[in-house]
Amino acid sequence: MIGIDIGGANTKIVCEDEVIIRYCPLWKESPITEMLSEFDGDAAVVMSGELADCFYSKAEGVSFIVNAVLDVLPEAQFYGTDGRFHTKAVPELAAANWLASADLLREQYADSVLVDFGSTTTDIIPLSPFDELLGHTDLTRLRKGHLIYCGMLRTPVASLLRSVIIDEEETPLSTEYFASAGDAHLVLGHITPGEYTVPTPDGKEVTRDLSLARLARSVCADLDEIGEAGAVTIALAFWKAERSLIEESLKRIGKRPLLAGGIGSRLLRSTLGGTDLFDEIGHFADALPAYAVREVAERNGI
Amino acid sequence: MIGIDIGGANTKIVCEDEVIIRYCPLWKESPITEMLSEFDGDAAVVMSGELADCFYSKAEGVSFIVNAVLDVLPEAQFYGTDGRFHTKAVPELAAANWLASADLLREQYADSVLVDFGSTTTDIIPLSPFDELLGHTDLTRLRKGHLIYCGMLRTPVASLLRSVIIDEEETPLSTEYFASAGDAHLVLGHITPGEYTVPTPDGKEVTRDLSLARLARSVCADLDEIGEAGAVTIALAFWKAERSLIEESLKRIGKRPLLAGGIGSRLLRSTLGGTDLFDEIGHFADALPAYAVREVAERNGI
Repeated sequence: MIGIDIGGANTKIVCEDEVIIRYCPLWKESPITEMLSEFDGDAAVVMSGELADCFYSKAEGVSFIVNAVLDVLPEAQFYGTDGRFHTKAVPELAAANWLASADLLREQYADSVLVDFGSTTTDIIPLSPFDELLGHTDLTRLRKGHLIYCGMLRTPVASLLRSVIIDEEETPLSTEYFASAGDAHLVLGHITPGEYTVPTPDGKEVTRDLSLARLARSVCADLDEIGEAGAVTIALAFWKAERSLIEESLKRIGKRPLLAGGIGSRLLRSTLGGTDLFDEIGHFADALPAYAVREVAERNGI
Repeated sequence: MIGIDIGGANTKIVCEDEVIIRYCPLWKESPITEMLSEFDGDAAVVMSGELADCFYSKAEGVSFIVNAVLDVLPEAQFYGTDGRFHTKAVPELAAANWLASADLLREQYADSVLVDFGSTTTDIIPLSPFDELLGHTDLTRLRKGHLIYCGMLRTPVASLLRSVIIDEEETPLSTEYFASAGDAHLVLGHITPGEYTVPTPDGKEVTRDLSLARLARSVCADLDEIGEAGAVTIALAFWKAERSLIEESLKRIGKRPLLAGGIGSRLLRSTLGGTDLFDEIGHFADALPAYAVREVAERNGI
């Protein structure tokens, strides 16, 4: 059986011991069917891509994704926010990927809070009581602080940071998408160029120099106007803003052991302590919902 | 003589009594030369498009734009942040469009502050003393509050608004570009669908219903999850955030009569009082730098 997590920007597939992460932006009409055509047999599926703005509604998005998957994998089963598997499009399939992760981990790490720090968002999930997690939507999870738009790669720097102190002067940022979280984390040494797996804001290459230039452009400057130190200051301020969002949410949930997942798990672990899921389940931690939905399906005899 | 203002997203041309505004995103390699090919003779030019992230630096952007214009209009003259006209690419040409407006208006409205509320940014310019305006860059103007990323159309709603109270619950916004200033202002009745002259975030049509849906998506919801009232609340909170930015800057500059320009001049005038440039110079107020650079060139005998 394979596990599939279809997001708006990335699709993740867990197949035997392999993790495949493909940048597959639904709003650019990336063909899910084509991408899945190399697979066959049983599949367990979760999604969050129904929110992509190519769809008029979540219901339309869910239908589209379910049909695209069933075209290639007619035996596929879809996990919902009710904690159950379904064989056709129902509203519960919208944004249930985080719940599959919780379902997998809820017994072994019952006292922990899972922080899945991904490319675009961070899911913060107290793993017990599990029943209280059922039925939540993106909207209710935003309000509880369980879904934070704060990622390692795609988050626009200017969306979390309105101004920064450079050369002792408060400097507001442009609201254009000039620099991304990926640029900030690359410059800070949190990721390698190879881990910057999404397009850059300007479509140019991934190098430290170009990331510094993108950060400088976010205050409407060439790099020589604010210097490398100025650009690094922007990156640091952005990462501080991200960290604050995560810490605020953890505070609301209350003190629990931290279980760090997602492509940012190592950074989280080194910043906030706790357990890095990577040390527990290896590279599956980078595609946790895809891995989890497969494991939960097999555990449930699906 | 024609006046031309080449921005990153829009190019504005003033030709005799006509104002032509074309969505011409430089980062998508829109052909400036082709767009200008219907014109000939003298031209006075300002720009801010050199900041577009298709260019590695402002110098590269200035050169590209100057060459593209000179290809079609070899007599063109370019206004700089030194308040002078140039015939070739020099660093002073970067982001001098606002200064042309100030140069035109500085005598007649010497005691006023000009607020040019455009599609993407707002320029806030005390019209005297004029000499103190010379030599400023985007970076120094951001710091002084003279350049604010706050517009009528292109500004991402989530870039100025991190959360909003809906149904008495604090609701954070997604950082995706799901809704624009244009959606907020359309829903609030500040603009008509015809005045929404840039692409929508999702590429779908401009209607009140679709703008409401885009605003709802900014909190990861279908419209029926938060209702029309919820979506209007987001629009109102966004407009309040924009107004605060403008008011803060005006406060720093000190009390002066307000002169409102740009496509948002009517809204500004009705909100903050003052004089609507539209009542003074008609539709040229919507393309103020393009109009101003032509008038200044003619005044200077260029």
